[in-house]
Amino acid sequence: MSVLIKGGRIITAGDDYVGDVFVEGESVSLIGRSLDVQADKVIDARGKYVIPGAVDPHTHMEMPFGGTVSCDDFTSGTISAAFGGTTSHVDFCLQEPGQSLPDALATWHEKIERKKPVIDVGFHLAVTDLTKGGNLEDLAKAPDEGVTSYKLFMAYKGAIMVEDETLFKTMQVAARTGALVMVHAENGDAIDILVKEALAEGKTEPKWHAATRPPLTEGEATNRAIQLARIAGAPLYVVHVSCKEAIDPVARARSADWQAWGETCTQYLFIDETALDQPDFEGAKYVYTPPPRPKENQEHLWHALATDMLSVVSTDHCPFNWDGQKTLGRDDFSKIPNGGPGIENRLHMLHHFGVREGRISMNRFVELVSTNPARFFGMYPRKGTIAVGSDADIVVFDPEKEHTISARTHHSNIDYNLYEGTEVVGAPDTVLVRGKVIVENDELVGSPGDGRFVRRARFGEHLTGAGGS
Amino acid sequence: MSVLIKGGRIITAGDDYVGDVFVEGESVSLIGRSLDVQADKVIDARGKYVIPGAVDPHTHMEMPFGGTVSCDDFTSGTISAAFGGTTSHVDFCLQEPGQSLPDALATWHEKIERKKPVIDVGFHLAVTDLTKGGNLEDLAKAPDEGVTSYKLFMAYKGAIMVEDETLFKTMQVAARTGALVMVHAENGDAIDILVKEALAEGKTEPKWHAATRPPLTEGEATNRAIQLARIAGAPLYVVHVSCKEAIDPVARARSADWQAWGETCTQYLFIDETALDQPDFEGAKYVYTPPPRPKENQEHLWHALATDMLSVVSTDHCPFNWDGQKTLGRDDFSKIPNGGPGIENRLHMLHHFGVREGRISMNRFVELVSTNPARFFGMYPRKGTIAVGSDADIVVFDPEKEHTISARTHHSNIDYNLYEGTEVVGAPDTVLVRGKVIVENDELVGSPGDGRFVRRARFGEHLTGAGGS
Amino acid sequence: MSVLIKGGRIITAGDDYVGDVFVEGESVSLIGRSLDVQADKVIDARGKYVIPGAVDPHTHMEMPFGGTVSCDDFTSGTISAAFGGTTSHVDFCLQEPGQSLPDALATWHEKIERKKPVIDVGFHLAVTDLTKGGNLEDLAKAPDEGVTSYKLFMAYKGAIMVEDETLFKTMQVAARTGALVMVHAENGDAIDILVKEALAEGKTEPKWHAATRPPLTEGEATNRAIQLARIAGAPLYVVHVSCKEAIDPVARARSADWQAWGETCTQYLFIDETALDQPDFEGAKYVYTPPPRPKENQEHLWHALATDMLSVVSTDHCPFNWDGQKTLGRDDFSKIPNGGPGIENRLHMLHHFGVREGRISMNRFVELVSTNPARFFGMYPRKGTIAVGSDADIVVFDPEKEHTISARTHHSNIDYNLYEGTEVVGAPDTVLVRGKVIVENDELVGSPGDGRFVRRARFGEHLTGAGGS
Amino acid sequence: MSVLIKGGRIITAGDDYVGDVFVEGESVSLIGRSLDVQADKVIDARGKYVIPGAVDPHTHMEMPFGGTVSCDDFTSGTISAAFGGTTSHVDFCLQEPGQSLPDALATWHEKIERKKPVIDVGFHLAVTDLTKGGNLEDLAKAPDEGVTSYKLFMAYKGAIMVEDETLFKTMQVAARTGALVMVHAENGDAIDILVKEALAEGKTEPKWHAATRPPLTEGEATNRAIQLARIAGAPLYVVHVSCKEAIDPVARARSADWQAWGETCTQYLFIDETALDQPDFEGAKYVYTPPPRPKENQEHLWHALATDMLSVVSTDHCPFNWDGQKTLGRDDFSKIPNGGPGIENRLHMLHHFGVREGRISMNRFVELVSTNPARFFGMYPRKGTIAVGSDADIVVFDPEKEHTISARTHHSNIDYNLYEGTEVVGAPDTVLVRGKVIVENDELVGSPGDGRFVRRARFGEHLTGAGGS
Repeated sequence: MSVLIKGGRIITAGDDYVGDVFVEGESVSLIGRSLDVQADKVIDARGKYVIPGAVDPHTHMEMPFGGTVSCDDFTSGTISAAFGGTTSHVDFCLQEPGQSLPDALATWHEKIERKKPVIDVGFHLAVTDLTKGGNLEDLAKAPDEGVTSYKLFMAYKGAIMVEDETLFKTMQVAARTGALVMVHAENGDAIDILVKEALAEGKTEPKWHAATRPPLTEGEATNRAIQLARIAGAPLYVVHVSCKEAIDPVARARSADWQAWGETCTQYLFIDETALDQPDFEGAKYVYTPPPRPKENQEHLWHALATDMLSVVSTDHCPFNWDGQKTLGRDDFSKIPNGGPGIENRLHMLHHFGVREGRISMNRFVELVSTNPARFFGMYPRKGTIAVGSDADIVVFDPEKEHTISARTHHSNIDYNLYEGTEVVGAPDTVLVRGKVIVENDELVGSPGDGRFVRRARFGEHLTGAGGS
Repeated sequence: MSVLIKGGRIITAGDDYVGDVFVEGESVSLIGRSLDVQADKVIDARGKYVIPGAVDPHTHMEMPFGGTVSCDDFTSGTISAAFGGTTSHVDFCLQEPGQSLPDALATWHEKIERKKPVIDVGFHLAVTDLTKGGNLEDLAKAPDEGVTSYKLFMAYKGAIMVEDETLFKTMQVAARTGALVMVHAENGDAIDILVKEALAEGKTEPKWHAATRPPLTEGEATNRAIQLARIAGAPLYVVHVSCKEAIDPVARARSADWQAWGETCTQYLFIDETALDQPDFEGAKYVYTPPPRPKENQEHLWHALATDMLSVVSTDHCPFNWDGQKTLGRDDFSKIPNGGPGIENRLHMLHHFGVREGRISMNRFVELVSTNPARFFGMYPRKGTIAVGSDADIVVFDPEKEHTISARTHHSNIDYNLYEGTEVVGAPDTVLVRGKVIVENDELVGSPGDGRFVRRARFGEHLTGAGGS
Repeated sequence: MSVLIKGGRIITAGDDYVGDVFVEGESVSLIGRSLDVQADKVIDARGKYVIPGAVDPHTHMEMPFGGTVSCDDFTSGTISAAFGGTTSHVDFCLQEPGQSLPDALATWHEKIERKKPVIDVGFHLAVTDLTKGGNLEDLAKAPDEGVTSYKLFMAYKGAIMVEDETLFKTMQVAARTGALVMVHAENGDAIDILVKEALAEGKTEPKWHAATRPPLTEGEATNRAIQLARIAGAPLYVVHVSCKEAIDPVARARSADWQAWGETCTQYLFIDETALDQPDFEGAKYVYTPPPRPKENQEHLWHALATDMLSVVSTDHCPFNWDGQKTLGRDDFSKIPNGGPGIENRLHMLHHFGVREGRISMNRFVELVSTNPARFFGMYPRKGTIAVGSDADIVVFDPEKEHTISARTHHSNIDYNLYEGTEVVGAPDTVLVRGKVIVENDELVGSPGDGRFVRRARFGEHLTGAGGS
Repeated sequence: MSVLIKGGRIITAGDDYVGDVFVEGESVSLIGRSLDVQADKVIDARGKYVIPGAVDPHTHMEMPFGGTVSCDDFTSGTISAAFGGTTSHVDFCLQEPGQSLPDALATWHEKIERKKPVIDVGFHLAVTDLTKGGNLEDLAKAPDEGVTSYKLFMAYKGAIMVEDETLFKTMQVAARTGALVMVHAENGDAIDILVKEALAEGKTEPKWHAATRPPLTEGEATNRAIQLARIAGAPLYVVHVSCKEAIDPVARARSADWQAWGETCTQYLFIDETALDQPDFEGAKYVYTPPPRPKENQEHLWHALATDMLSVVSTDHCPFNWDGQKTLGRDDFSKIPNGGPGIENRLHMLHHFGVREGRISMNRFVELVSTNPARFFGMYPRKGTIAVGSDADIVVFDPEKEHTISARTHHSNIDYNLYEGTEVVGAPDTVLVRGKVIVENDELVGSPGDGRFVRRARFGEHLTGAGGS
């Protein structure tokens, strides 16, 4: 099977030129000016961008949380991803407290067996307990299984939060095994107190979700994680940075060249805390964590993306239906399942409001949604670029295609969309995963199982690794 | 004429993979895994790096200064460049005070006609006077001639220094014409006073060159240029940043996302002020401006390169023979022609001490010596990358080749080398300029005239420009 | 002659206690809890603050500028000062270009002979030329005459602006003589160009005064002066800091413990650039330099005062009547005499809006308007505190006294007031200069000649000097 | 009883003048130039400094720790203090885990009843448990007893360390009650792991005390405490800041005008980590926490004191004899009681190396050792200044007196001195506590019981409080 993508403007993190891309089997075999080759399929990309498929390093498919389960499985969620131009993602395999780490990984492998993905999938190992079910030995072995990142929650006290002891020990293991440590950075102790106080005072509406998680709780935990990682000698990746208070410590790390980086998510660039105030419990749609922030933080986030103080834009796709799931917390905001959808609209939003409105270049756009996630998570240069030898995860992106974002048309199972009604210009046209077209003419042409589990390399291995091998 | 470069590790600013590069005529036409094509010439690059030819944005060939002329013409200087892996450079066309700007450009075009280059050449327009010979109209026209950068000297009072008035007016023109403003940033007024005081006190040895140009004079002027450029709305490029005092304002600009950037030069990473103290007037070899600095600045410079606070490494190649030229200042350091050689050794030094010693990655190395200079100076993506459609300016670089730097073997006319005796591992093997091999087996196989004048695009045009067209 | 001030709350920069102050002759001789002494005059200060008389280090009495002369002489201006609680000031003796420095000082001494002050007066030497009339020798002698501060203008090109050469040479002299260098920091070259451009485009209204002096021109010059002072080894005092762009370099100096400090003036804390837009040429009242700034700078200034990044609040009292003086620039904003009044209202405004509104403490208030100016300008501990042996420059300040600021009631000659109609709570009750009551019951009871010329000590001499001697 | 101190140079945080001080009963009643009063006792202070008695806000008398008890009781410790010019101190009343807070306070009151002090004494309440013995109600009541500061340990896991929950709740109480929160800031979780790892590897010598408490553990906890305090709305005082990593977050707080401040202790200015390497277990003398740091931190600390980024110098006097106490940890550094002496030598060291060597002024010296501690801890203006109405806690300090520091001559019970053999110039001559001379002619003339418990005001009350009442 071969595919020839002709005449597109090929844009990677570093380059921008017009050419033809020839795909043989699963990878790119040839790039040229006017290729004179036979192909099983020819895609006319003239006037369009040919970009590496996006990588979403932060998703939660079929995840148990707060007594319910996120409403996309790996099939529905990855179909939604594919329509948005995302060709691989890394999902959080969440250890249940008391569960062994191999069991946790097995559970997640079962999920993608049962509900097969249409795009490639990797796993982070989300460690919640290292004393009962989990242990350091199992933790150290995960990278051998292609699971080369450990995630820890510094919030959700009484549930999945870890104390500094577990956090630090995990970092020490990471320093030895070459894994990348990821943290959800919020001070869970303070938040727990603030939540209880609010509830005790009868403050039960969704807006109290934000009020009880002030930006400083995120800023504090972000700095704590960075400093502990430095002590342990482990590289660190701070997920979903949402506010200036958390950007600041990450920016200090970048300026000092410490091994710590941060991502933000699409929603923090567009949605502010007033969304939680919507009447009729509509505000619950915006109950994700960290919460929507005061609006001025959006400019800080854009600035941080432009100056490379933040390195990635992910989605934290963690969908719960409003009707039946979010409504579990109608009388108590703390019972609203935390999370929101977004895997399908990251490129739509970031291209339209980022690239078209002049905040970032197309090269930087590709870097933020594809190249950098691939680099951080040991998938580069197989993923994250268009180069000879790389996986043919390719998106033909039409910069002039008009698209209206809506829950009525999106492909996730969820019953609402964070950006409902937003009209964007620029959307994926054709999407290939390892050489196979899976979306074309706004139709799914791929099938569950087209996506595979990705064994990822250790952090930093890409730095010297020759691609294509 | 076609060339096939087989099996090398192709490294650009963004990518790193193994493949074959096929060159037809002057540009890259095909990149593939195992190309099955006929070529007039085949280069075996297995085990070697295939990188874009380096771009040196800061050279002074055959430049009159202090009553003498720099000792490389465009033939000898570009041969030296080619042996070091540099395939294009941008030289400073220096307006003599009183001369018209078109005359100045004509003079420089004559130089490359008379002494033809072996690599490509562009010109910056160094403005020294806008009242007698120069005027704003001529200044505004230079970009139409492919000269899209204006250089101004904030030092050398009484010679080529401009006052803030001329500096600011030039910036205003640049804001309109799309040219990039470059500054030599030192406070010439303060330096002039310090030099006169030193001489009056009988301080005539080379070391007083550094003592009379303290780092703060550079730091002050750097900030001044940045702020004036912001007022005028012009982009700014600060040349030869040498010390922490000057890094700081550039770093503030980068963090704030102002349109200002800085380069350093090879020598500032390796040579410190004690070099000026060498006996028997040997210290005069290190009389360039800014002067060698206290050693601790070297770590600050490396740090700034690693964190993208500085964006380019150039050479400021401005060679004066020690014997007969430097010795003009035997009794008065202020009469020593300012400048040093270096065009041939930039990649040697930066690869060995930067890449091999772990300070920067190979991608960053390519970015600093090739991609970024090409981007800033309107030559990207023709220069600065290896992509389909780009000029086939390519260096096959052997990372294990041993080389001892010495004036006895270098190809510049100058009688000394700043890095005399330094043994490096990693050197260019084969060098192509627009598809023509000019250096091979340590021999020059190209000829004067293989290099051409490059009409450069305006600043920022590369951001949206499709390559190869 | 003796005075007993009974039962007041004595507040200095460092202390705050209730007690009696006994003044014999010109100085404080005794402080006690319930003094049992005979006094020629007794002042009941119960319920009031007893604070050191304010020191205004920045005034321009009878100053020639733009073809006219500021409308307060030393008698009218100091009477105005006295009513506002200011008991000494330092005025700028302005060298006319071409005039010798001793002649300039003689001219100023004549002014205070002709129009005698009611409060004490010192002189700064404002150097405008060191090549024709002025010279370094005379400059070096000024401190011997009790004139221990040199002022330079980096703006007003073509008039009193100095180039960096003169600035730097003056700093070098200051480093030797122990004088403090003061700068009016704006980039005069850029401003001159912007003003000419504006006028050429028919932009003649007062608001263009601000538009042609953007904050960055002040920020640039502020940093330049700081760095040049560091090179020269001279202490520096930046006058009338008006905006964040200029606070930033001063704050860097304070954090780094460099010998550079800054003052702001009352008006920058309260008046913003929209004032210049007032109709019927009323905006001309606010044409002073630096100009009123965008409003957000006011919070930056308050923050800088609270964190000791700025050290003094002065007035830059330089009054020109609206009718007849400001109107000289009716058709050309550049012909409006630059300057505004304020010597009488500094304490009113800063106490009400600073102390009462919780932005600064009373101790800090005293430090900003009295102690710090006295320290910087060699008058401490004679001025600036209430201590045994200090000059009895004392203000009994009633924190509950209501006062409406107005040109109808103020004591300056000027025909308008910047704060017209502002109602404040807190005002001076009784004012003593060296033991003599000069203002009491809202009446002037002192006379011209009660004030004297103050020979000031060199910078830093107060650090080790025992007071009272 | 009255005392007249004649002719000294009276130096407070704000002033510096020559005068006489007259003390009647316990407080200052009169300050004058040449007082003509009858006094029971006259002290000739000519040529000497008359300064407010120093306040040591950080001491541990008779404190149980690690199975032993610090070797000074309130009598011996305060005698030692008095000889060093310290006239009041605030000691940490340490709640034993499980003990109620009132019981803890009662225990400390018993200590000063049993072993009466010669100088004044206040208590901080060191909270170690709010679930078993302690509770929030009792905590809230402490300020009513004159105990207006809460101390928490973020280190010493398994012993007195509190989790963020307890820390944050205490801060919330402080925000209500007006108490000042104090933290010992080190990340106890990380340290606990590092200590166990070191011991497991057989690293038992004293130097591992420093190696297992890296500076980043202090920096992290310092920032955490600051941010949590901001969330809670409580003022914060960080004790014993020892290194750049911890200065940085405090400096950010100062620059941002957050309600957080820091102290350092004498030993961190003089002793570096190499001291722990001394042979024959002598290194154990320097086992205090935070540990001695790399030497370069000393310049950072001096810089922070000079720029007001740190506000106080205390001693953390916590003496354990080398012989018999320190030696408990001969085979295991973690069993060495943490703490060192110093209450007697703070002024000696800081005057000689700080004032005489030009790092700080005498005013700043007084501010750091006396005025600021008094202000922070609700004792100002009774303590911390020499003003009418203030407690007559006065030190006549001879700036030329030569003194050799030694355990042979110091007055603490401890068998070593951290500064053994250091020769300083400048020492207290005569020391008064509330009007009573307690040290004179190098002899103790006061008695146990001359010192009293000080009921302290709430934080910030001094800001508006009239002195002497």
